Amino acid sequence: MSRIPHTLCSLSDYEAEAERHLPPDVWAYISGSSMDGLTKRRNASAYDQCLLQSRVLVEGLGQGGCQTQLFGRSLKSPLLIAPLAYQRLVHPMGEIATVQAALAQGVGFCLSTLSSTSIEAVSEAASDSCRWFQLYCQPDLNETLHLIDRAEQADFQALIVTVDAPFNGVRHDEQRAGFRLPADVSAVNLNHLPKPRAGDSVFECWMKTAPTWKTIGLILEHTHLPVILKGVMHPEDALKAVDLGVSGIIVSNHGGRVLDTQPASLEVLPLMRQVLPEGFPILMDGGIRRGSDIFKAIALGADAVLLGRYVLYALAVAGPLGVAHILRVLRDELEATMALCGCASLADVSTACLFDFPGTFSNNRGLE
Amino acid sequence: MSRIPHTLCSLSDYEAEAERHLPPDVWAYISGSSMDGLTKRRNASAYDQCLLQSRVLVEGLGQGGCQTQLFGRSLKSPLLIAPLAYQRLVHPMGEIATVQAALAQGVGFCLSTLSSTSIEAVSEAASDSCRWFQLYCQPDLNETLHLIDRAEQADFQALIVTVDAPFNGVRHDEQRAGFRLPADVSAVNLNHLPKPRAGDSVFECWMKTAPTWKTIGLILEHTHLPVILKGVMHPEDALKAVDLGVSGIIVSNHGGRVLDTQPASLEVLPLMRQVLPEGFPILMDGGIRRGSDIFKAIALGADAVLLGRYVLYALAVAGPLGVAHILRVLRDELEATMALCGCASLADVSTACLFDFPGTFSNNRGLE
Amino acid sequence: MSRIPHTLCSLSDYEAEAERHLPPDVWAYISGSSMDGLTKRRNASAYDQCLLQSRVLVEGLGQGGCQTQLFGRSLKSPLLIAPLAYQRLVHPMGEIATVQAALAQGVGFCLSTLSSTSIEAVSEAASDSCRWFQLYCQPDLNETLHLIDRAEQADFQALIVTVDAPFNGVRHDEQRAGFRLPADVSAVNLNHLPKPRAGDSVFECWMKTAPTWKTIGLILEHTHLPVILKGVMHPEDALKAVDLGVSGIIVSNHGGRVLDTQPASLEVLPLMRQVLPEGFPILMDGGIRRGSDIFKAIALGADAVLLGRYVLYALAVAGPLGVAHILRVLRDELEATMALCGCASLADVSTACLFDFPGTFSNNRGLE
Amino acid sequence: MSRIPHTLCSLSDYEAEAERHLPPDVWAYISGSSMDGLTKRRNASAYDQCLLQSRVLVEGLGQGGCQTQLFGRSLKSPLLIAPLAYQRLVHPMGEIATVQAALAQGVGFCLSTLSSTSIEAVSEAASDSCRWFQLYCQPDLNETLHLIDRAEQADFQALIVTVDAPFNGVRHDEQRAGFRLPADVSAVNLNHLPKPRAGDSVFECWMKTAPTWKTIGLILEHTHLPVILKGVMHPEDALKAVDLGVSGIIVSNHGGRVLDTQPASLEVLPLMRQVLPEGFPILMDGGIRRGSDIFKAIALGADAVLLGRYVLYALAVAGPLGVAHILRVLRDELEATMALCGCASLADVSTACLFDFPGTFSNNRGLE
Ligand SMILES: Cc1cc2nc3c(=O)[nH]c(=O)nc-3n(C[C@H](O)[C@H](O)[C@H](O)COP(=O)(O)O)c2cc1C
Ligand SMILES: Cc1cc2nc3c(=O)[nH]c(=O)nc-3n(C[C@H](O)[C@H](O)[C@H](O)COP(=O)(O)O)c2cc1C
Ligand SMILES: Cc1cc2nc3c(=O)[nH]c(=O)nc-3n(C[C@H](O)[C@H](O)[C@H](O)COP(=O)(O)O)c2cc1C
Ligand SMILES: Cc1cc2nc3c(=O)[nH]c(=O)nc-3n(C[C@H](O)[C@H](O)[C@H](O)COP(=O)(O)O)c2cc1C
Repeated sequence: MSRIPHTLCSLSDYEAEAERHLPPDVWAYISGSSMDGLTKRRNASAYDQCLLQSRVLVEGLGQGGCQTQLFGRSLKSPLLIAPLAYQRLVHPMGEIATVQAALAQGVGFCLSTLSSTSIEAVSEAASDSCRWFQLYCQPDLNETLHLIDRAEQADFQALIVTVDAPFNGVRHDEQRAGFRLPADVSAVNLNHLPKPRAGDSVFECWMKTAPTWKTIGLILEHTHLPVILKGVMHPEDALKAVDLGVSGIIVSNHGGRVLDTQPASLEVLPLMRQVLPEGFPILMDGGIRRGSDIFKAIALGADAVLLGRYVLYALAVAGPLGVAHILRVLRDELEATMALCGCASLADVSTACLFDFPGTFSNNRGLE
Repeated sequence: MSRIPHTLCSLSDYEAEAERHLPPDVWAYISGSSMDGLTKRRNASAYDQCLLQSRVLVEGLGQGGCQTQLFGRSLKSPLLIAPLAYQRLVHPMGEIATVQAALAQGVGFCLSTLSSTSIEAVSEAASDSCRWFQLYCQPDLNETLHLIDRAEQADFQALIVTVDAPFNGVRHDEQRAGFRLPADVSAVNLNHLPKPRAGDSVFECWMKTAPTWKTIGLILEHTHLPVILKGVMHPEDALKAVDLGVSGIIVSNHGGRVLDTQPASLEVLPLMRQVLPEGFPILMDGGIRRGSDIFKAIALGADAVLLGRYVLYALAVAGPLGVAHILRVLRDELEATMALCGCASLADVSTACLFDFPGTFSNNRGLE
Repeated sequence: MSRIPHTLCSLSDYEAEAERHLPPDVWAYISGSSMDGLTKRRNASAYDQCLLQSRVLVEGLGQGGCQTQLFGRSLKSPLLIAPLAYQRLVHPMGEIATVQAALAQGVGFCLSTLSSTSIEAVSEAASDSCRWFQLYCQPDLNETLHLIDRAEQADFQALIVTVDAPFNGVRHDEQRAGFRLPADVSAVNLNHLPKPRAGDSVFECWMKTAPTWKTIGLILEHTHLPVILKGVMHPEDALKAVDLGVSGIIVSNHGGRVLDTQPASLEVLPLMRQVLPEGFPILMDGGIRRGSDIFKAIALGADAVLLGRYVLYALAVAGPLGVAHILRVLRDELEATMALCGCASLADVSTACLFDFPGTFSNNRGLE
Repeated sequence: MSRIPHTLCSLSDYEAEAERHLPPDVWAYISGSSMDGLTKRRNASAYDQCLLQSRVLVEGLGQGGCQTQLFGRSLKSPLLIAPLAYQRLVHPMGEIATVQAALAQGVGFCLSTLSSTSIEAVSEAASDSCRWFQLYCQPDLNETLHLIDRAEQADFQALIVTVDAPFNGVRHDEQRAGFRLPADVSAVNLNHLPKPRAGDSVFECWMKTAPTWKTIGLILEHTHLPVILKGVMHPEDALKAVDLGVSGIIVSNHGGRVLDTQPASLEVLPLMRQVLPEGFPILMDGGIRRGSDIFKAIALGADAVLLGRYVLYALAVAGPLGVAHILRVLRDELEATMALCGCASLADVSTACLFDFPGTFSNNRGLE
């Protein structure tokens, strides 16, 4: 696609189009979620229940903008592409397309351990990009450390360690659709995918080799990159992370793909901001679909957000151009929201910009 | 149409009929809203959650009525036609039809800056009407003041300054439908529509020339007409308006056309009444569809309400007669509601007439 | 119909069948409601939100039963057929069918002022029945008193004065369906239907001749029958009624046919029980469809309930046999509910039998 | 069926398939419920409103597992097959199939008084199984005691006395579908089904011979087996049961088959745990469909749960293999949930693992 048609205005338009476009099993894999998909839906609907407080006639908005600094780099908007496995499933350019779109739009990019393009190739294709490497700890620690070394050498600027998915979760959508990776798409950065150990239960098969706080300690010792934990939903886990020396957390339930009937990440966000040290970087993902969703996440305490499934929808429908388009749409919508709420910069965005948000958003249950 | 068929009983009936009647792009433009339309829907559903307390056997209702005074003029009911751009889109008579219907039914009329009929022609067509001019501040202050002068000379009796739409908002419905003004409909009162300035963001394109509190100060100095701010949703903005000397506010989120996921205007209304000086005129619009909706707005603190989209639906379906019909239907429904709640006049309509209204209606969050 | 088919088990089955059975305009008239039907729906859904607390292994239930005393007469269950106009619309036997079904099932019967069968004929057809006359006050007081005299002479045992419908309300369902009384059905007990007075508004047309508290005083002086006010929804109106000397009230919003967006009658019931003198008879109607609904109304303070629309559905579908059937179904369901909640008699049914009921059920807003 | 197809992943898949598979009247009997099915639906939806709190990087999960002890026997998961009448309705092997599946999967099995296979045959078919006998008290005490004797001799290890169904409840689904037991399926353990006594009401027909607390006393004197009451929903009834010497209770509303508009059993569970002595066995059933549902029940105080309708769906669709499959699916889902919430054993599962649960879950209304 070399031009975006006028019917593709918003991220939802890409979703509908991608469903028509993709083979059913790939659609099931990407759009799917754990069990009954309640957390996926709750992630999205949480934004709708968080109401905005508009302001009028504010002076000084002519100089406004949504640029931000994250771990020492400038971004045009507080947005990163989330780590998403196997992007060549939906477009031959795969991760090359998305990292270039991110670079073009001035936002960040996270490369999955399960990327279908090599760490080095991604670096080469977008050497100026803001890019972070997402690490799935491997059963063998040396393999884990080797992945980190490669990411460092390829000038990735931060390390995201995903801690919420020691195994795949209960994924019936893709099972029913009979999804399997096609022959020409694989996890090229790994010699082989981790296999379950023999055993009768998830505990024996997966949890015996799952990473623990000790693993994080070893990683922190090994690397000089800032380490960010992805998938933290409990304030006590977040506090433990701070104590251990990590540089940031991502409040995330993995887009509802691992454990269902969790709260929305937006609901957990304010609890995190409340207990974590001032200035400690908190990112979040889950259900972001509008620039106003980003605004609300910022208002409730996020420094930046990650965008997941919609990246793949846009990539499937319109390639790198599609991805660049939705990143731009989100920025425009975010800036429109800021202007209408009287905020000239992200620093102005706070809970004072919200009219009301449901009870759980502000309660303190996580800590009792 | 020279007679209203018996199947057109309520405003909803006109809505359904208008959708059948109008070209899809015009329908998208009129019925559409910002982003996902949540605020448009919330505006409407807020009335349904506000319950009435009926009273029986009350003495003295034989003399009842819903007439009111507004800025020194009598209205047969506390109702005005909201400023609505380009009315010739849906009927060749355009604004002439609506102002005459308003006059016939004894309600007020607001003429949009973006009217498709000239200020002077509207005045001539209904010289006895209660009519207000709605001002969109132009990038050039002199043009703004010139519009005011013309409105004064054409005997408009008040000035509404719309402050919630420094730009159009994110309007995907009309974008997807490919809406464009037809050649024979234009903003005849302006030499040209304001164009966005060059720039990469909404801040640069629109906010550099957007009106601010300073602009309101200049307008107040320039005109002797009462100035009413339209689109105020934050109590602090309302208080600032009072301090500056405006004569009234309209609690409005522009029918959900500019910024989505705002609270309903009905939800904000009681907060406004609570903080503003007694007797200070508060109007509101958004989602009014039944006479009982007007009753509830009055009960929660409004002096009068404005009617938006339904005016255009009625105009499209049945011309001036249709508009007069829905104005009358609203009055009849309002009076029926008053009679059944034991109110002989609007002064009797208060929160005591409501059984219950949801939490946000009475909370005080806007001010903390 | 001489046998009820096994597919007609519950009152809902009759509703579905009646819709298929009746001409659309008659269906619209009977099933219809004021404005958007929200109160009609709320009346019904209120029961679903009121949860039962079952009890097990209770001794002494072998002697249980749901019979009751009302104004000195025994009823087999705490149930009356509500006053319903023009019953010959749906079945040639009309009111004769329903009063005989009521008598056969040992429940009460209310005859509407707008009945399509004469007061005297109803009496003759069921001389042993428990029957009450429902009075709509006529513009001419003498006509009103004459109706009362006829009811007394025909041995009606109580007088219901309906006070919530000084006019018809806004009834778009029947208007759209073009409903009109057929030539052979009329209000045979009146010389003529009250006509609206000339005037521009509901106040002038109807409220000038509407009954007031003074009218109730005159009626109380005139008759020796117990007088019950139907349509009281405000605790202060109920207290005024007690002061004036009425013998009971019916908490009712007229099945949502007069004023829309009122609370459900079930929601108002506990407020009434709370403020009225102990032992003062409180009846209610609105949305009763299950024996468990009756149980809940009793638990929240009612002495008995009235059944409206479903009587007409059953009459339309299966004549007197159908009406008798649904009265029996309600009794069986009520007794099953009592047995499973451990109640041997209606005196055992209290709020202790409810697990939980929504906030408004117990709040006190009506009185502040 | 000798292999489970990949489209049958979750219990819901079996439900959809069973509906296609079974004759409509049998489907109505099994899937049906009392009155309008609100309690059946509430049982299920209660789990969705109870949110999980995930934990990350927990040490020591490699040794985890969900095995438990119940009345001295080990189970591989805290799960039993609920007593379900007439299982040969849906599969020729009937109860033999289900008890063998339970044995194979290491979970418990409850045999209904209304089983279509004899007590003795079930024992023989699975002599090592954990099996409990469910008792419906018969009108004649001797028959009741004789059933107990047979269960003891057949080495059943506990006695469940179902106390919430002195009669069938109002079951319109099966009535409308015209359900009747086919000739070759019957309650083989009884000489005859209890017949209603003559009488006009449920009280006379059924409650005169219904079991009471006295009956429970006699049973406790007669048997040495642990006695568990099934169908207790009121904390006071539970306390009375403890006083009398029963060994456990099952919080259950009979899957919504007897009395509609009760709270979900999950809602009542925490109230029970709160008032009953520490360590007193509380089981529950109603709406269990996911391993995460079991997790939540354990978190709110259950020692184990029973599975009802889904057993019959799986039996209908895929015979004993199907039943074994869903038991295994539940265990896998439960263990996945435990691992992701950081619980190595059931003892770690507590309310601290829940993010939030609706008000009624924790209130104390049952006891006031
Ligand atoms: C198809 C797909 C693959 C994903 N792969 C990874 C991955 O390899 N590593 C990871 O940490 N998260 C992965 N995620 C989770 C995303 O990073 C992100 O947390 C989630 O998608 C955010 O929610 P959203 O899709 O609602 O925006 C994946 C998500 C999807 C949809
Ligand atoms: C087609 C259309 C055009 C409008 N044009 C204007 C306008 O020119 N100026 C203005 O202040 N508001 C304008 N509005 C907003 C209305 O004045 C009003 O605030 C809104 O429609 C009220 O909500 P309602 O449509 O739900 O009744 C417009 C609304 C619509 C639907
Ligand atoms: C077709 C119809 C006619 C009615 N006529 C009368 C009437 O003549 N007098 C009166 O007091 N109420 C009348 N009612 C109201 C009923 O008495 C009763 O209050 C209402 O129907 C109860 O609600 P339900 O239909 O939900 O059971 C009528 C209701 C219906 C549906
Ligand atoms: C078809 C069917 C037959 C049942 N038979 C019995 C029975 O004989 N005895 C009993 O105590 N419960 C019986 N039950 C109730 C179950 O034991 C259990 O309480 C209920 O089904 C649990 O809810 P669930 O179906 O939502 O899992 C039966 C339930 C069904 C669906």
